Amino acid sequence: MPYIQVNNNAPGIRSLVLYRPDTGKPLYELAQALLRNGSPDSTLTDAERELIAAYVSSRNRTDFCMNSHAAAARYLFGGEKNVVDQTLANPDAAPISAKLRALLGIAEGVAADARTVSAESVEAARAEGATDGDIHDTVLIAASFCMFNRYVDGLATLTPTDPAAYEAMGERMGTQGYVLPKPA
Amino acid sequence: MPYIQVNNNAPGIRSLVLYRPDTGKPLYELAQALLRNGSPDSTLTDAERELIAAYVSSRNRTDFCMNSHAAAARYLFGGEKNVVDQTLANPDAAPISAKLRALLGIAEGVAADARTVSAESVEAARAEGATDGDIHDTVLIAASFCMFNRYVDGLATLTPTDPAAYEAMGERMGTQGYVLPKPA
Repeated sequence: MPYIQVNNNAPGIRSLVLYRPDTGKPLYELAQALLRNGSPDSTLTDAERELIAAYVSSRNRTDFCMNSHAAAARYLFGGEKNVVDQTLANPDAAPISAKLRALLGIAEGVAADARTVSAESVEAARAEGATDGDIHDTVLIAASFCMFNRYVDGLATLTPTDPAAYEAMGERMGTQGYVLPKPA
Repeated sequence: MPYIQVNNNAPGIRSLVLYRPDTGKPLYELAQALLRNGSPDSTLTDAERELIAAYVSSRNRTDFCMNSHAAAARYLFGGEKNVVDQTLANPDAAPISAKLRALLGIAEGVAADARTVSAESVEAARAEGATDGDIHDTVLIAASFCMFNRYVDGLATLTPTDPAAYEAMGERMGTQGYVLPKPA
């Protein structure tokens, strides 16, 4: 049960954006800008953006965000769904591009201590084809999930345990993106 | 020098919101909702909100955010400016309310590992007069500064060293709030 009375039974972040639409609106607009629209010069797909979000959430051990964004990534990767689970387990051995692997390394650094992200790691990502927009979006996806994860965990929001619940969320996120839910 | 070409000479977060207004807009709207408007049932002043932001940034060791939000808090506290520096140094010995001290403890927990925020620490804040809105806003201010800090540090944005630069920022933040800067 959440630490505050959210007056709804929605899980995770949805309970909080329904409780407080004044903060929910910019939070969902940020998610849509980062996980769907992206930078004009970015080469990242929506599936890769969701995978970065799930990866950071797994490193922060926030099950709700990890499971929901992993489900969205699986939905968006389509035939290659296993790439999500392989990446969460070990990006070095996963069938992903060298560019995405380098960006996941930057995302992990941002989550652990952003002051350790080095010019060398950024140059290494660039050498694999990452644009300025890719680097920007990766850093801000990672940073924003350090916020979303803490928001959900710090208020002890509802975390479903049924995998089918996340599969349904992943399909909704994959088809509709981030739209503020209407109050019930 | 930032890791990406931001095409402006603004410091910290301002360089990034000028570079990418599509993400800058929700980021500034979130800051305004949390640091100025607040929850309808909240008892926190704007000065206290800025102090929570500065405190979290000091714990994350992000000098730009710490110095700018400390300056905004000093401006908003008016005659009691020293309360900011005393709180950043040691909240247990600072001349602040027991309610704010309890909320700063929650904010510190959110920054370190939000899964450690306990029902007991939330109840202790409530016993000192904190409302649901205060608890919500404290958790999301702390979580959002874990994002802002990482965004600014992960891209190595410009961090001024002149205290006068922060004093001017603090006055602007204190009087105008969070308004997306216009491109130069």
